[in-house]
Parts: sequence; structure tokens; C-alpha cells
Amino acid sequence: MHTATITKQEIQAKIDLKTKPLGALGALEKLAFQIASVQDTLSPQLVSPHIIVFAASHGIASEGVSAYPSEVTPQMVLNFIGGGAAINVFTRQHGIGLLLVDAGVDYDFGKNEKLVDAKVGFGTKSFLQQPAMTGAECRQSLEKGAELVRQVQETGCNVIGFGEMGIGNTSSASVIMSRLLNRPISECAGKGTGLDDDQLAKKIAVLTQALEYHQNTGNDPESVLATFGGFEIAMMCGAMREAARLGMLVLVDGFIASVSYLVALKMDPGVQRNAIFCHQSNEKGHRLLLESLESEALLKLDMRLGEGTGCALAYPLLQSAVAFLNEMASFESAGVSQKTEN
Amino acid sequence: MHTATITKQEIQAKIDLKTKPLGALGALEKLAFQIASVQDTLSPQLVSPHIIVFAASHGIASEGVSAYPSEVTPQMVLNFIGGGAAINVFTRQHGIGLLLVDAGVDYDFGKNEKLVDAKVGFGTKSFLQQPAMTGAECRQSLEKGAELVRQVQETGCNVIGFGEMGIGNTSSASVIMSRLLNRPISECAGKGTGLDDDQLAKKIAVLTQALEYHQNTGNDPESVLATFGGFEIAMMCGAMREAARLGMLVLVDGFIASVSYLVALKMDPGVQRNAIFCHQSNEKGHRLLLESLESEALLKLDMRLGEGTGCALAYPLLQSAVAFLNEMASFESAGVSQKTEN
Repeated sequence: MHTATITKQEIQAKIDLKTKPLGALGALEKLAFQIASVQDTLSPQLVSPHIIVFAASHGIASEGVSAYPSEVTPQMVLNFIGGGAAINVFTRQHGIGLLLVDAGVDYDFGKNEKLVDAKVGFGTKSFLQQPAMTGAECRQSLEKGAELVRQVQETGCNVIGFGEMGIGNTSSASVIMSRLLNRPISECAGKGTGLDDDQLAKKIAVLTQALEYHQNTGNDPESVLATFGGFEIAMMCGAMREAARLGMLVLVDGFIASVSYLVALKMDPGVQRNAIFCHQSNEKGHRLLLESLESEALLKLDMRLGEGTGCALAYPLLQSAVAFLNEMASFESAGVSQKTEN
Repeated sequence: MHTATITKQEIQAKIDLKTKPLGALGALEKLAFQIASVQDTLSPQLVSPHIIVFAASHGIASEGVSAYPSEVTPQMVLNFIGGGAAINVFTRQHGIGLLLVDAGVDYDFGKNEKLVDAKVGFGTKSFLQQPAMTGAECRQSLEKGAELVRQVQETGCNVIGFGEMGIGNTSSASVIMSRLLNRPISECAGKGTGLDDDQLAKKIAVLTQALEYHQNTGNDPESVLATFGGFEIAMMCGAMREAARLGMLVLVDGFIASVSYLVALKMDPGVQRNAIFCHQSNEKGHRLLLESLESEALLKLDMRLGEGTGCALAYPLLQSAVAFLNEMASFESAGVSQKTEN
């Protein structure tokens, strides 16, 4: 990391001298400040935005923890490839590059130029009575995520978001959150793609059993990730760490992506500086997770879809933050009087 | 208003068959439903979006209720004309047409092709001990707002937002809200562009005195509007009513615009169907006002700027709502399995 040449005071002064009451652009001002800080310039630019969607299958999905069957994961990947999913629509709308990654789906997609083959395995094991992945698989996932980010960065990209698809992955994410934040699973697990109350009770019972089974597993982030993680969660974690290391803005999507971020943060506290939380999901644990991270998301649209949709929808707010900082007149240049002195 | 040809069930079915869990796009689904209902089609389109910014001066500003001097109103209008204000930046970003209207600024702008001269007067009177405007001025403002919307509609526009500029207008809006909702002024008045606690106490004292002075004035929306309103608030009210009558989508900005909407709603309950609340302002009364309207804004970015900035920033979410409805694949077309039956 190079030494900053622009001071916080210089950035704040540029924001404060814009023709608006002090602080009147609220969250956009904080965002502009962060972007300018990360890019170490008073005239930040967003270049070649990308979203990577990582997909993987989950052994835990066979324990009846999800409202949808496991085959939806490869079906949705094919839908991404065909351009018909929500994330396709929203990335097209905002001119965001979309990279689709098979992190470990239980399906043979063959060779497809629209899908990056980064398959670590044909889905994780059910973590009910064994680790979801081996330590080697976990490290492979982390490294592959980092490698993909380096490839995207070569396009000039300096702002990158991460999304996921994986039936069963709210279970995986809830358990990781529960372990890393030391919170009861009942506070971390929610209805996912649409469980009813009875089904949620069953999901919590299954996850409680899994946590008990693995209670003696190490609490370091990599052990927790390997024990309970999905390949997409691990790959996203590696990707976030690398993106932050490279000085890119890191767009964090909903609950699953925020759990990947939590693991990344435990490994590299530096990721915080670059992370922008895009959407507070309707999934129960997300509010609690953001609170514990002392972070607020830009959008709260009651969505619970994943795929990186929150990143895509929040992206125009980043553009607005950069635009006001670069394009708005100052009090002096516009000849506008400032606040009345008391 | 013509009879709807598309049923609510048809719209909901189209939303529900998209490749996502039921309801997983949250607020965007409600928005898509509303837009399709208003346009009476399963394939809605947003055409020639516009924002009109109405500016006016306020007699009440001379009573020490604002953090900024009155001359900021014409200075900011000149800034709008010059393209340097926040609303210029955000409308440019999203390709939204911007119409600047002098509804009654205390300044002679001369002839300027970038400013619509709709001046009702050189500012309102201070409503501390007299009505802010006459009944005739109020009606003129309402009619002028409607006329401007008809002109914009001729460009093909079917989605229009409204913003305002007027030092002192949070005072005007707070008092109107207090009267029309029968809530104490202390719940409706906030810090505006940046008062401190002492200044806010003074503002509330001034507004309490004004409310007492006018306590026998009629409580019908037009009397309240004429007594306490600004020319921009009245013009926005007339504009919203006309836009809804013409079947356009009506984007409501922050606190002041929401008070204009409240007056419009009391006159024409039909405006509700077309109204989209874009941003919940940081101004104190706005949360309460939205609650009493049983409405939620799309964005909560802690802004308090007005100018229609909330409308401009929320506009891409309308585009996303329309885009997912028109472009996303259905479960059937994408070959994706639906929810597991219990």
C-alpha cells in the first residue's frame, strides 16, 4: 500500500465547499469521502465496473434446510448464462461487466465461454457430520477468487462487486456468522429463499446439531470457513481480500456476501477501508451482522435474492457520489452565500 | 380515467413467475406492480423523464427561521441555470430533463431561456401576522403548476418528479403539515438546512406564534396552503394533481415536496395511485409525514437538500423495476424448478 498524498481534510473541504448545506447529501458524502480516500485523489473515477457471481452446490441442502431443491443452483447458472436472471438485467442496465464463475456446482456444464470453470468440487459435503470441505479445497477456493480478481483488474477495473448463487448457502453463512461472532444460531438463521415458520425451526435444529458436532473445531476464520463454508463463500472471501489489496472498491452484496466479508475481515482487517455495503437484505441475520460491523448499507429494499443484485442496484449511487464531487460548483465558483454566522 | 384492461392478478402473476423466490425483489416488485397498474400494461415503459424544480422566496425567512440568508434562493437559481447544483449533476447522470421554474423568487432574473418565468410575486408575505398569499395568488400558483406539467407531457413524458428551492420553506411546510395532520408543530419542524438547537427552538416559537395568529383560518387545504404556503409549494401541488390526472408517474422528493403532496392528496385522493416517494429526508417531520401517509420511500440516504435530488437518485430504481418486469426470464422459459411443495 502506498502512502496517501491527499489528506482527509482536503477531501472533506472539497465536499463541504459544494453548493449545498453542510452534510446535506448525507450518505453520498460519506461515500464520496471513502471513494476519494481509497483512490487517494480529489477527483475519483469509477472505471470498468464488474460483478463476479460465484455459484456452488451445498451438501447441507440435502438436510431439508431450503425452500428450493438443489438442482435450482445449476438451473440458475444456466439462466445467468442465458441472460435471463435479475443480475443480468441490472448489470446490463448499468453497464457493469458480469463474470459468471462455477466455484463448485454439482453439475457438468461442459465448456462454455460464458462461464468460468473454477470448480473446486461437485458441491461441498454436508457439514452435519463432517467438514464441508478440506483445508486444501478451502485454500484452493481462496486462491482462485484472488486470481479471478487479478484477471478482472487487468481490464482497468477499479470497482468490483461480488454475488453468489447456491441453494443452501444461507445455512452455511448463518453458521459461519454464529461461530465468528459468537452469537446464537437462532439470531443468525433466517427464512432464506422462503421457508415458513416450521421449516425455519427445522433449519435451526439442523444447524444447531451441526454446530454441536463441530464444537471442537478451531475458531480461526480459515477453519470455520472450511468446516461450514461453501465454495462460493470461500472464493468470494479470497476475491474480496485481493480486490482490497489491489486498492479496488469492494461492493458487498447481501447476507451471504457479508459473511464472506466477515471472514475476509478476520483474515485481513484492511479490507474494511475498501468495502461498501450495498443492500441490507431482508434475511434475518443481515441486520445483526451489519450492526456488529458498525456498517450501514446504501439500500434497504427488502430484497433477499443474492446474485450481486444489491451491488448492481447501488452502483448508480457510487456514480452519483463521484459525480457530485467532480462536477458540482463550489460556493465561491457559483457566487452563493454561505451559512449565516451566529 | 379509463377503465383498466389489465387485472392486478395478471400483473402479480407476471412478477411471481420471474426466476427468483416469491417476493425476493422486495420494494422493486411493489414498484413494478404500481408502474404496471398506473400504465395499465404488463410491459410498462418510462418515457422522457423530467424533473421540475420550483423556486420561491418566503416572507417568513425574515423572521430568523433559517440557517441561510434569503438571497441564497436567487443565487441557487442562478447556480441551477449554470448547471452547478446537485440536481444538475444527478439529472445529467440519468438523462432526466430538468425544467427550472421561477415560481416567485424575490429577484429579477430578466429573460433567460433556461428559466421558466412563472413568477406569482416577489416572494410571499411573512405569515407571522398575515396570510402568505392571497386566494388569487394561491389559485394562480396551482394553475400554473398544472399548465407546466401539460407542457412537459407534450414531450411524451410519462414520469415526472418535483423539487424545490426556497430558503424558509421548511417553516412553511412544517406549519402546513401541522395544520392538515393536526400534529403539534414541535413534531413537524426540524433543523432545515442546518439550525442548531437554540435556533430550532426559536423557529418553533415563531411558528407557534404564527399558528396561534391564524387559528381561526379555515382548515380546508386551499386555505391552509394560501395562509402558510410558498409559491413553490402551491405550484408543486397543482403540478402533482395534474400529473396524476394525466396518468403520469409522480415522483415525490423530500419533506417539502411531500407536504405539497399532502395538500394535493387532500384535494384529490386519486394522486395516491401515481405517487412514488423517492427519499426519506433527514428533516425531522418527514418520517412522521410518511408514516401518517402509510408510505415508505425508496431511498433513505440521510439527505436534506431538496431540489428534487431524491427523485433523480431514485430514478434508476424505477428503471430497474421496469427492466426486471420486461426482461427477466420466467421459471418456465428458463427451465428452473419452482419451490418445493410441503
